[in-house]
Amino acid sequence: MAATAGLDVRSQFPTLAREGVVYLDSAATSQTPEAVLAAMDDYYRHHRASVHRGVYPLAAEATDLFEGARTRIAQFVNWAARDTVFTRNASEALNVVAHGWGRRHVGPGDKILVTRMEHHSNFVPWWMLARDTGAELVEVPLDAEGQVDLGALDALLPGAKVLAFAHVSNVLGTITPAAEIARRAREAGVVTVVDGSQAVPQMPVDLAAIDADFYAWTGHKAYGPTGVGVLHGRHDLLLDTEPLIGGGHMISSVSFEDVRWAAPPSRFEAGTSAIAEVIGLGAAVDWLSDLGMEAIRSHEVDVTAYALERLGELDDVTLHGPRDVAQRGALVSFALTGIHPHDVSEIIGRRGVCVRAGHHCAQPLMQHLGESATTRASFAVHTTRDEIDQLVDGLAEVRRIFA
Amino acid sequence: MAATAGLDVRSQFPTLAREGVVYLDSAATSQTPEAVLAAMDDYYRHHRASVHRGVYPLAAEATDLFEGARTRIAQFVNWAARDTVFTRNASEALNVVAHGWGRRHVGPGDKILVTRMEHHSNFVPWWMLARDTGAELVEVPLDAEGQVDLGALDALLPGAKVLAFAHVSNVLGTITPAAEIARRAREAGVVTVVDGSQAVPQMPVDLAAIDADFYAWTGHKAYGPTGVGVLHGRHDLLLDTEPLIGGGHMISSVSFEDVRWAAPPSRFEAGTSAIAEVIGLGAAVDWLSDLGMEAIRSHEVDVTAYALERLGELDDVTLHGPRDVAQRGALVSFALTGIHPHDVSEIIGRRGVCVRAGHHCAQPLMQHLGESATTRASFAVHTTRDEIDQLVDGLAEVRRIFA
Repeated sequence: MAATAGLDVRSQFPTLAREGVVYLDSAATSQTPEAVLAAMDDYYRHHRASVHRGVYPLAAEATDLFEGARTRIAQFVNWAARDTVFTRNASEALNVVAHGWGRRHVGPGDKILVTRMEHHSNFVPWWMLARDTGAELVEVPLDAEGQVDLGALDALLPGAKVLAFAHVSNVLGTITPAAEIARRAREAGVVTVVDGSQAVPQMPVDLAAIDADFYAWTGHKAYGPTGVGVLHGRHDLLLDTEPLIGGGHMISSVSFEDVRWAAPPSRFEAGTSAIAEVIGLGAAVDWLSDLGMEAIRSHEVDVTAYALERLGELDDVTLHGPRDVAQRGALVSFALTGIHPHDVSEIIGRRGVCVRAGHHCAQPLMQHLGESATTRASFAVHTTRDEIDQLVDGLAEVRRIFA
Repeated sequence: MAATAGLDVRSQFPTLAREGVVYLDSAATSQTPEAVLAAMDDYYRHHRASVHRGVYPLAAEATDLFEGARTRIAQFVNWAARDTVFTRNASEALNVVAHGWGRRHVGPGDKILVTRMEHHSNFVPWWMLARDTGAELVEVPLDAEGQVDLGALDALLPGAKVLAFAHVSNVLGTITPAAEIARRAREAGVVTVVDGSQAVPQMPVDLAAIDADFYAWTGHKAYGPTGVGVLHGRHDLLLDTEPLIGGGHMISSVSFEDVRWAAPPSRFEAGTSAIAEVIGLGAAVDWLSDLGMEAIRSHEVDVTAYALERLGELDDVTLHGPRDVAQRGALVSFALTGIHPHDVSEIIGRRGVCVRAGHHCAQPLMQHLGESATTRASFAVHTTRDEIDQLVDGLAEVRRIFA
């Protein structure tokens, strides 16, 4: 850590203590700090009961832990707790909107705008909605560096129903001007649905300032546990959204003749929630808040800039995405000339350097890049410049093997 | 434990060590043994990576843990791993069937059969399907003791499309003759969808022998973690089921023009799975297998029979559900004359006795019973006769307060 100064957090991530592990795949899933494991352990060991439905003290304790986490998670991104819904992951959150809001409001011939860089989680549900309603799925193109083409967007917005876009691209790293895009969409009467999965762990996110209509993210990329995602929505739009999943807890009354939905957020949380996972995610946002998202962003900008610099020096490396680190999240996708990304990942993986190779669940973007796959190194609060050097050293070995 | 002999497992449940806790709410959510917590901890501490998509060793380890758990979970109920899907909970699993299979196969005027005792998780999705397709939701009535009325069922089956029923009722405790019901339905060409949430933790469940078309259950009631449910389906029917949630991993190809689904089980597992939770549930079924489901059932029959005996001695207690313990799972719902179940639960809750009061997410059944709520005590592998005595002592105190 010495070279980067930065954040002294590595000891809080147990897996990083494994001999030789250089974890550069946080965009896939983040490591989990001790504080998160401790919070879940505390629930399972001392307060194990279901939430909401029990009147005995153990159930009340569990409910307080669960709803307390909801309050802090909502505060973390500056949104109302009652408009903050827990799902399994970001995919489910985005499907709640596409199916539950979309089927009520999108019809034949309507335009659904999605950018060319969307992760499948913010693409496939819209494709399904278009297929099922006869609406048209329309591409919002990117500029040469992989930023949303705002001029093209302006031309597409009039008459469109909904615009789905990523806050930070999981392949290009692009940070989109989310507030600006949401403002333009709002002026055109277009509902905005933002995939914030990569953004929330990396930078301060103020949803009131962005002012989109729906914003989804996931716990497992934000130093939280697996098994929990988050959907924030404007209250009036959540009230006008059909639940995706019917079952217990999400109703106000049930009979053979009629079923009435509960108010949000319960309406979207059928069955027993991911109780421990929500509590764990509450601990994760506490932990992030204590470090400070500005400090995390600053550290990751340093590491990302260093990675762009080191990789940029290599003649056989092609970098994808914005070169300006201010427009880029903490990841770098690249191609090594003549060598398949899977070979790159596998060879450096043997040295302990963990990077992702593939289409990164973004095939429409891959088609745009003209690649079937890229290699992606992604960074986190615990990443060091030394780890970037080990990545670059690894590439030298790949070259030697393929020479 | 002495009086019941039974299973010496209490020390493996940390929450039970809390002073005064008498946990009689396992039908809501089970306690979690050390072995399950240890398995999840091992994943987070030593193998923390995403599954399926990474080629580096850490990701391969995580994938092996995850898919190994799928194999053992499927074996535990005697079903194929490839036809075993992980969801957030049983509700999601049942919605996958109702929406994904149902919208393809159920149309206007078709009959959807559901029993009067279904939990909302196996009722609301069918109500939604009927509403959206113009199908008819038809009640399968119960006999006087709360068993499915097989004669009435036989009259309803011809021409019906689908039959949804619980393997064990979460209110009445009724164990339905699942294999017999599935056989009759199959002969009538009716698809069966079984909610096994209460059954799997309580008794040996052999899905090949039951031979239903779909069978759902949940981890958090089966000594596993929160955040994971399971859907088993016949392979040909899963192939003919539309995914409920679109996103990453569940596709074989994606473009603006076309999206192709992956094969089951991936098709139904959009986005990052509940990795730690699946691994934890794998440890839970190992733990259950080591104890032996026959031994667990035998212990719980003893405790349940004792509860029926003790509660049956009380003039002001009305018991719901089958009196024959062979037809009853490990729970007892009852009414205490003149005193609301919430008051019962709250007063004995102060003594540490944890029982549920309410409609138990089964309002259609409550309408049938003519009650707005019941008190329910539910039992588990760790329940003792002494704890039943404490429940009965608690009722005496309730009576004193209301006298």
